[in-house]
Order: sequence, then structure tokens, then C-alpha cells
Amino acid sequence: MKASFLSLLALIACATNSFAAEKPNFVIIFCDDLGYGDLSSFGHPTIKTPNLDTMATEGQKWTNFYVAACVCTPSRAGLLTGRLPVRNGMCSDTRRVLFPDSSGGLPTTEITISSALKKSGYHTAAIGKWHLGHLPEFLPTKHGFDSYFGIPYSNDMDPIRRVNPIKAAEEENWEAYNLPLMRDEEIIERPVNQTTITRRYTEEAVKKIEGFGDEPFFIYLAHNLPHIPLFRGKDFKDTSTAGIYGDVVEELDWSVGEIRKALEKSGVSENTLVIFTSDNGPWLPFKQHGGSAGMLRDGKGSTWEGGMREPTIIAWPGIIQPGIVHDMGATLDLLPTFVSLAGGTLPDDRTYDGVDLSATLKGETDTSPRDEMFYYHGEQLFAVRKGQYKAHFKTKTSYSGQKKAEVHNPPLLYHLGSDPGEQWDIAKQHPDIVKELQDLSASHTKGVKPVPNNLNGVIGK
Amino acid sequence: MKASFLSLLALIACATNSFAAEKPNFVIIFCDDLGYGDLSSFGHPTIKTPNLDTMATEGQKWTNFYVAACVCTPSRAGLLTGRLPVRNGMCSDTRRVLFPDSSGGLPTTEITISSALKKSGYHTAAIGKWHLGHLPEFLPTKHGFDSYFGIPYSNDMDPIRRVNPIKAAEEENWEAYNLPLMRDEEIIERPVNQTTITRRYTEEAVKKIEGFGDEPFFIYLAHNLPHIPLFRGKDFKDTSTAGIYGDVVEELDWSVGEIRKALEKSGVSENTLVIFTSDNGPWLPFKQHGGSAGMLRDGKGSTWEGGMREPTIIAWPGIIQPGIVHDMGATLDLLPTFVSLAGGTLPDDRTYDGVDLSATLKGETDTSPRDEMFYYHGEQLFAVRKGQYKAHFKTKTSYSGQKKAEVHNPPLLYHLGSDPGEQWDIAKQHPDIVKELQDLSASHTKGVKPVPNNLNGVIGK
Repeated sequence: MKASFLSLLALIACATNSFAAEKPNFVIIFCDDLGYGDLSSFGHPTIKTPNLDTMATEGQKWTNFYVAACVCTPSRAGLLTGRLPVRNGMCSDTRRVLFPDSSGGLPTTEITISSALKKSGYHTAAIGKWHLGHLPEFLPTKHGFDSYFGIPYSNDMDPIRRVNPIKAAEEENWEAYNLPLMRDEEIIERPVNQTTITRRYTEEAVKKIEGFGDEPFFIYLAHNLPHIPLFRGKDFKDTSTAGIYGDVVEELDWSVGEIRKALEKSGVSENTLVIFTSDNGPWLPFKQHGGSAGMLRDGKGSTWEGGMREPTIIAWPGIIQPGIVHDMGATLDLLPTFVSLAGGTLPDDRTYDGVDLSATLKGETDTSPRDEMFYYHGEQLFAVRKGQYKAHFKTKTSYSGQKKAEVHNPPLLYHLGSDPGEQWDIAKQHPDIVKELQDLSASHTKGVKPVPNNLNGVIGK
Repeated sequence: MKASFLSLLALIACATNSFAAEKPNFVIIFCDDLGYGDLSSFGHPTIKTPNLDTMATEGQKWTNFYVAACVCTPSRAGLLTGRLPVRNGMCSDTRRVLFPDSSGGLPTTEITISSALKKSGYHTAAIGKWHLGHLPEFLPTKHGFDSYFGIPYSNDMDPIRRVNPIKAAEEENWEAYNLPLMRDEEIIERPVNQTTITRRYTEEAVKKIEGFGDEPFFIYLAHNLPHIPLFRGKDFKDTSTAGIYGDVVEELDWSVGEIRKALEKSGVSENTLVIFTSDNGPWLPFKQHGGSAGMLRDGKGSTWEGGMREPTIIAWPGIIQPGIVHDMGATLDLLPTFVSLAGGTLPDDRTYDGVDLSATLKGETDTSPRDEMFYYHGEQLFAVRKGQYKAHFKTKTSYSGQKKAEVHNPPLLYHLGSDPGEQWDIAKQHPDIVKELQDLSASHTKGVKPVPNNLNGVIGK
């Protein structure tokens, strides 16, 4: 009797383990306007990020990881749906992101990571910045998230009066912004005290982890920093040698440490994939209040590498093969990867732009299935990468006063392996590769069907 | 009898251990023209340096580590003597480095790391590029090294006819250079096959390590790469995605792995301090054949950070506290640090510019005793750093056609903590700090006594 009871226990334990292995947890930690060069493990000489450094050593550091767009709203739409924003109307040449007066948002016909995982029995929570529609019909709770705690758009929107975000940060004047903090579908605080925001997002995430226990969960923790205006908690005030920007990134690093500690404490660390990345490159015109793309060219708003390549770290103790992945990956790949790891399937009624990275993560292969990347500026395809080669058909340095995009015919061509800073155009020496990338661009563009725009609408207009 | 014999053995073992601990071995691995951003652990997205990454994780990664000068000869003179080149005549505004027709070299009145350690009973070996005088009276064997194996000056000197170093590298045409390989004071091969050079330096170092056994040693392994023309061994040909430059750096990384393996195999790993760094920043005009300073400004030949800050890793298993050191250090500090760790003393008949870093290395303090750095361009002091602030009195982008240095009065002022790329001059906002740095510059200059120039002389003139 005793023996068979023990056998039963062993069987249950085994089943639980196997269930757990079939349904890993997922935590996306998504920053805002963090540059490729802003982490210590990605080469920053001053900013201290010990928790991310440890995560990079224990997990995988991806050095060619892309976002779906070079600005906020379309980048987030791409991450959550695994589809380029041009397929769901969340990009535009007119308005580049949503604003507090916007009437649009991510259509509920889209499948998000959250709605897909819910079908596989996951608990889901969105914490932080949403920026995919602040009207009730577009909120996280309408997109497969059980709960939401955060701000509905960027932290520099809703200024009470004309305000310089650098001055506001230096004076810690968060009251200059009438920024709402929401719980699910309600505004619970306005203006929110932005000096407490990273800490409160972190506490919310920790509470969720503790509450989910052994049941599978997905947390989308989208910090609204280091987007300007920069606010940091009192424990991080003037503690970095890298100025306010350094303080803010170091608080985000602290947050990563807290999340990982909570997973450890809850005993789910070895069943949880955590990915850290950001929505787009650094907002360079803000100088010391913007980050750095390291040796990559340009930043937020541009389709140069600095605008769309992000410092990305993925950890999953015991499962992910530690190391550096130099092949490509993208936030677009998270939906198919997570669904695959959760044992789910996706409806085949739509085109996905993401690929399943799970074999690369597990070390079953040392290459990535992603060999191409498409760089959109609003609704237009500006550049294409295949392997180490990238062709620019148009370029525009955003937020710098350049009014019109420069058209390149023939396109500019760079070898990103030997020239990651995109300094030396080699189109003339490689007409065959230029032709190949032009053909790739043409066939891709042909496969994108026009959809209604969901970004330009204004309330009451 | 047996017992006392064992006691005696134990006593000998104990004495040997204690002797070993008192006399750690030192290995300097010194590259040529490697940029701050060229290692994976310092942010390069393509070049693979797994051995250096491991060394960085196990040891200390220094992110503010300087060389004594922004070009080859004076940088090496500074490293070996712990004194600024302006104190030993190894810098000049006319000739910036030694050439095959030079009659000068490092005066034998100078104390080098090697001659200092010899006094403490060390075996010493110089391997690789010397560049401190190729005439017999200036060779390594005249400067405290028991043996020498390497090339006496840069690998692009002595071209047989006018040659483009990029073309020579692409065609593997090492015969275009009449470069001599020396053993001690003899030329043993000319021209040396440069595609074998990194491997042969490495094999020589490994042989030395094996030969020294338990006796204390100092190896100065000064690779002549990745200085142009770039040559790599057959096992590294076209293996990197970062082009020939990537191949070369990946072979250097392999070399580091071999050295560390040899120390391990000889059982002296835990009694050996290994430092990896380079002589000056990347030679930018050579484009894909030059490296990258990452987010630092400019490169070789300039006193911007990219010219003089180097990716530096120091390891000493069991003794060095693993971590990242953001405080300053310099190659100038190696002489006093090594002598201190070896229990020796230095004569007080001269001025040293180095400070003893041993407490920082051992983790006895989390700060560095170095709080100042002086940036020389030839014989002139161009810039000064104190804490996070750096003032430029003159600037000149070398190797770019800029004929005359630009004089800045008031000086340019940068905060290297929040602005490591030296982009935003803040002199106007901080007149007090400008004044402090001007005073520091004046008092430093006052302390430098004129010495005979040892760099400009030409054979037969």
C-alpha cells in the first residue's frame, strides 16, 4: 500500500514535471528607446548592469536581434502579433505612433502572443506601457491579457503645458505630465508619479509570479523607460556615473534582478523563459538623455541598424544553451517560438513574419532559421537584409530635421559582418547581391496585401 | 626517520608554495591597433572571442584602461617603463614612431618591467613586436629580457616595393615585405611568413611556460596584429563573418586560449596574472582592415578616447576578484603593480607615472588609485582627465589629412561618464572644472623635465 502510494506520488510528480516542461512560462521584459550599446554586456563603458550581465552569461546574448519597426507603436504591434505592422495597419507615413487623441489601436482580429497562449491554458498579464490603443476596445484586456497595470501610451505624452522633457527630468517634475496609470480598464491615478513607476511595475510582476504558482503564465512587462522624460526611484538618484540616463538603466537592471529572484523563489526559474530587449533604438537628439547604439549607425526612427537592432538576452536555466548567438532573430519570432514551446498551434488564415527560434534556443542547432530582415519606415520598405548583406533603398535620419527620405538607386549595400557600422557602401563591387536583394524586396512587397490603416484616426474626426 | 623526511618534504612544499605566492608569474598579451570595440565582451556584434569572453567573466574587465600614447613606439615605452614617453625621449612631434632607418631606441638607463623583475629572480621572455629600437644596443636582451623572438618593428615597415597593405592582405602577399624575424639578437628569417606569425608567437610562449616550470617568470607577448597588413593562419582563413580583420582577431583570441591552457597544464594558472590589452586604438582610415573603437570617438593617433582607451582584461584565478572595473587604469601602472606583487622595490631616482593597482585587482578596494590621465600627442600634452571630466586643449584627428592641431581655448570639456563618445562640450556650464583641469595640466607640465629625444635619429645622419 505504502509502496503504491509512493508510486502514485512519483507518477504525479512525473506528470507535473512533464506538464511543466510542456508549458513553460514566458516573461518578456521590453524596454523603451534603449540603445544597442546601453548595457555593460553590449559594451557600455559606464552604465552598470550586473543582473543583465549575469543573465547574458547564463543565457544567450543575441547580437543581431531586430524589432519590427523603428518606432514604438508598430514595434509593439509586431512583437505581439508576429506580423509586420504593415499587415495589421499599425504603421503609417503620416502619424508614426498613436497619441492621446488617437481613435485607433491594434485590431482585435489580430492574434497576440497573449491570446494564443490563453488558448493553451496560460495566465496572462500585461504590465507597463501599452501604446496599442488607449480606448476601451483596444486595451490589453481585449487582447488576451487577464490583467493590465500600466500607462496606455508614451510617458512624454499628455504634458499639462509645454514642457522640456530634459528640464522636467532634471527637476523630477513628473507633475508636468497628466499621465494616467491604469488597472485593467480603469484609470487609478493621474498624473502618475513617474519616479515610482519602474519599482511599481516590478512589484506588480513579482506579485503575479508569486500568485501564478505552478500554473503556466505569460507576463509582458513593458517598461516605459528609458524613454524621455527620464525619472528614477529615490534609491537610484544620482547613483550612476552615467548621469540620469545611467540611473534609469541601472534601475531597470535592478528590476530584471528582482524578476529573476522572484522566479527562483517561486521555484519556477527552470521552467521560465525570460527575454530582455527593447522596442527601438536610442532617441539620439536628446543627447545625454538619450542612449547609445554603440558602434551601430543612427537610432530611433531610422532604418539604419541603430534604429532597429536591440541588445537582447534570453535565459531559461537548464534549457537554453548559454552562449552568444550572432545569427538573426526578431521580436516577430516570439509569437511562433512561444506557441511552439507551449505545444500550441496558430491558425493558418493569415501571414506571419516570425519564425520559430526554439531549436536555436535549446542549442539543437547553432544557426538561426531567420536569414532575412525587412526594415520598414512607416508603411514603406526602406531596407532589406539577407545573410550579412543589407541593401538600403531609402534612408532617413529621423528626428534630425531631414524632411524627405533620400532615395538610393542603385541601393546602398553594406556587409554587416565586416562593417556593422554601415560605413562603406559596396554596391558597385557586388551587383549580383544588389540584384538579389532587389528581387527579395520585390517578392516580399508583392506578398503584402493592403489593409485599412489603424493608426491615423483622431477622436471625433 | 620516515616521519621527519615527510615533515621535511611538507616544509619544502610549504616553502615552495609560499615562495610561489610571493612571486606570481606575469603574462602581458599586448595587441597592436586593436580597437576598444573589437572584442565580443566589449560589444562587437560579429567578431567571436570566446576565450577572451571567458577570461573577462573569470577575471576583471577594465572599461577605462589607458595606454601611455596613441601610437606604437611611445605606447610601448610607457608600458615597459611605467613612465610617460616624454620622460624617456621616446616620443616626438617629428617622427611619431621608430622606423627601419632609425638610429634610436629605448635608453638602457630606463628600468623596464623586465629588468625590475629580473632583480627579483624572474625568468623573462619577450615575444613579438618590439618597436623600441632594432639596433643591437636597444634590443629586448639589453632591457632585461633573457630571450627574444619576434619582429623588431611594425609589420608594414620594410616593404620591398610600394605596396597597398589591403591588397597585400587580400592576396596573402607577405613576400611584399622584407620583414625580419629575430631570435635574441640575430635575424633568423627574412622575409618572415606573416601568415604563421601569430601561431609561432603562441607556440613560443607555450614552450616558455612549459620550460619555466615552478620558477617565477614574466612573458611579454606583443602580437604584431591586427596592425595592417592583416595576415592570418590557414586555420583562420575566411572563418569569421567579420572579414579578414575578424579572422585575425579570432586567431588572437585562439592564442589567448592556448596561453591559458598552457598555464593550466603547467599547474601555474593560479599563480599567474595575465593581462590582455593593446597599444593604441584602431587605425580607422584602413576601413574594414582597421578595427572599431565602439562608441568611443576617433582612433589610433588621436587623443580622443578611441585613440587611447583599450579593451583590457586581467585574470588571475583565485586571486583577482571577478567583475567589471569602471575606474581608471593604465599600462603605465603595470610596472609598479607587478613589482609590488613580486615583493620588489623600485629605485627612487626617477619619476614614475604609474600607480600600484594590486589592491584593486585583489578586490581589497572597489576603486582604483588612478584618478588622472594625461593624453600626449607626440611631445605635447593635448588633454587631461580627472575623475569623469576630460579637457582637450588641442585635438588632431590623425591619419585623416588634418595638418595642424586645433587649439581649444577655453578647452573642450566632456563628462566621460554620461558622454563616453565625447559628443557634447560642457565647458561653458562648468568653468570651475575647466579651471581645475587647466591647473592640473600646468602643474603636471611643470614636473616634466626636458630629456634628449631618442626617436628622431636616422642611421648615418
